[in-house]
Amino acid sequence: MNVVSFTTDYGLADGFVAACHGVILRAAPDTRIIDVTHLVPPGDVRRAATVLAQTVGSLPRGVHLAVVDPGVGTSRRAVALRAAGGDLVGPDNGLLIDAAERLGGIRTAVSLPVPAGVPATFHGRDVFAPAAARLAGGGEPAQLGAPVDPATLVRLPAPHVRRRPGGGLDTEVVLVDTFGNVQLAASAAQLAEARLSPPMRAWLWPARQEAVEIAVGVTFASVAPGEPLLYVDAAGMAALAVRDGDAARTLGLAPGDRLALQPG
Amino acid sequence: MNVVSFTTDYGLADGFVAACHGVILRAAPDTRIIDVTHLVPPGDVRRAATVLAQTVGSLPRGVHLAVVDPGVGTSRRAVALRAAGGDLVGPDNGLLIDAAERLGGIRTAVSLPVPAGVPATFHGRDVFAPAAARLAGGGEPAQLGAPVDPATLVRLPAPHVRRRPGGGLDTEVVLVDTFGNVQLAASAAQLAEARLSPPMRAWLWPARQEAVEIAVGVTFASVAPGEPLLYVDAAGMAALAVRDGDAARTLGLAPGDRLALQPG
Amino acid sequence: MNVVSFTTDYGLADGFVAACHGVILRAAPDTRIIDVTHLVPPGDVRRAATVLAQTVGSLPRGVHLAVVDPGVGTSRRAVALRAAGGDLVGPDNGLLIDAAERLGGIRTAVSLPVPAGVPATFHGRDVFAPAAARLAGGGEPAQLGAPVDPATLVRLPAPHVRRRPGGGLDTEVVLVDTFGNVQLAASAAQLAEARLSPPMRAWLWPARQEAVEIAVGVTFASVAPGEPLLYVDAAGMAALAVRDGDAARTLGLAPGDRLALQPG
Repeated sequence: MNVVSFTTDYGLADGFVAACHGVILRAAPDTRIIDVTHLVPPGDVRRAATVLAQTVGSLPRGVHLAVVDPGVGTSRRAVALRAAGGDLVGPDNGLLIDAAERLGGIRTAVSLPVPAGVPATFHGRDVFAPAAARLAGGGEPAQLGAPVDPATLVRLPAPHVRRRPGGGLDTEVVLVDTFGNVQLAASAAQLAEARLSPPMRAWLWPARQEAVEIAVGVTFASVAPGEPLLYVDAAGMAALAVRDGDAARTLGLAPGDRLALQPG
Repeated sequence: MNVVSFTTDYGLADGFVAACHGVILRAAPDTRIIDVTHLVPPGDVRRAATVLAQTVGSLPRGVHLAVVDPGVGTSRRAVALRAAGGDLVGPDNGLLIDAAERLGGIRTAVSLPVPAGVPATFHGRDVFAPAAARLAGGGEPAQLGAPVDPATLVRLPAPHVRRRPGGGLDTEVVLVDTFGNVQLAASAAQLAEARLSPPMRAWLWPARQEAVEIAVGVTFASVAPGEPLLYVDAAGMAALAVRDGDAARTLGLAPGDRLALQPG
Repeated sequence: MNVVSFTTDYGLADGFVAACHGVILRAAPDTRIIDVTHLVPPGDVRRAATVLAQTVGSLPRGVHLAVVDPGVGTSRRAVALRAAGGDLVGPDNGLLIDAAERLGGIRTAVSLPVPAGVPATFHGRDVFAPAAARLAGGGEPAQLGAPVDPATLVRLPAPHVRRRPGGGLDTEVVLVDTFGNVQLAASAAQLAEARLSPPMRAWLWPARQEAVEIAVGVTFASVAPGEPLLYVDAAGMAALAVRDGDAARTLGLAPGDRLALQPG
């Protein structure tokens, strides 16, 4: 079984995702395609990179095709990467790096040529999906393009996380999920080092709001309905939730917002 | 062919659905996964149960994995059920019961253990999907967990439907679909017993509005554009529609609302 | 491999799409189903027809099942079409014609009977999906229904496009995509004939706004962030975009709106 995972900001209202499925299945009919998400906000490379990185560990070995590409048609490179645990295909804008590191790190990188005459606005269909299909069918990155030094690949800035003197963390919001749960840049280990472990209470200072006292727990039901919670989420990251509620809305938090956590 | 149907409130903007697909395909690569819906409103067990129950009859025999689980990580049980016509896997909160009854009723139920060390917030990936994959691959429920008396499974309260003296029904809204069509708790048979059969007219009393006179018909085009209609929907239930319109919005109806229907 | 593409206005919140997948897979288990989109606005036959027509060229040869069907249950015909490059199944309301022409034109058309006793509101499940499955499994249109003269099939009016004296075009908005890019009724060839080729500037007169001066370019990055652009999109049609923005919102354009383009 050849597996291609597929992550974009194409939305689900047009035929863009299906066109790419079609291109892959025409070239490699035995491929299984797993759609990660196509609802990345337009151009939000950071969110796509994070979602993909936190999902690849659950996917079968295969090719991870990701296209969030506000620079489509410019001189930004199109790349294919081979990591220890799978291949990745997409624009060279930082989108693939975190996932590649979860898959054991980049061993080989190549730059994909853009065929003459293809439209300048749909490289997902005309450049990236064909490359993913070739890799899914057993191709080698070296057959797809010229070698690239992995050190030259574009990387996103690391999200902010820093220990506070005396315990606690300054950090930022990385991701808000469907339920309104707010993932932070701090790992479970960083949370423990900052002395923010259950069962205890903590103070949360959102950037634009007053401090809130919250419980540190293990699951949503660690607190009463409507109450906020600091916990380690299923990706192993510090996160904020409100039981039976929407923490992002309740706490007024969005990706990129800075906040502080202090043992209570 | 092994088939797993998959119903959640995970949304489509994160990697949660894909992670579960990945877990299933790693364990049982030949499995076909049919996504029923992942847009159940967060925690809306009733809606998910109804959608699944009204869909299973059209699906191939297989395993029906459903996860709408506000109690994840608490002492609520995780269960696998074997019915005459298929298996079901999900939380013990009422979600699976209606579908199991459509599949011929529950023959065996087991309680799924939660592996030590898994995060407390993503049993879909870590408990339910692995169980569904084992059943899809030919496993028996008894291999997955300890037997549970089906009589102890949590059940949702039956939605309200009662005949009115002299004809008509008091009932409630069960479901509003994508088109704004409003499914009621009354079956086609109950509608006929209440003397509400096409072609005729009826009075509808929504809870918070004035009475509306509506036609009893068979399809949307039984009435003029913009006009309301009482009909039997494709699931065999009484429903309200507005031709080329949105009945829920026009009539001000939402799931759980009570209403009365009276022959006109 | 049998392939069925699937386009509807069913949305993704109910079990309607899954029910049709189930019907197809029960009848033709080896079928691969490619979901084109199920987020067509309710009843918007024009949008569905355009999206399908612009996607079929990327899909494997197969059956294209499309159901946007406000006339379900009325005397409108249900049809199956055989084109040179594939089959199409859906209501006879214009939905399939553009795609059939992209696939080489209609060779055979048949009218699908509605089985006695099926509900009047879900022909997708009960009429169209079974027909698509039979064709996917190798059936012939003539086995499915009575022949229909292709000249009698319902067709949508052609969208408006006309050259302006002295250069430029009067045309209309056909489609707004997920990104807010605005596809017009003019082809790349018509754009060139109207002397609207990059690199140059043009004047755009939206129907309800003042004239805007825009660049004619090849990709989003042909202009500065926030600036509007006239370009040829990946479907080969004239389109308007705003770099890193939403052209439909910025320019106040929606499907059906008339506008004029004039060399600057």
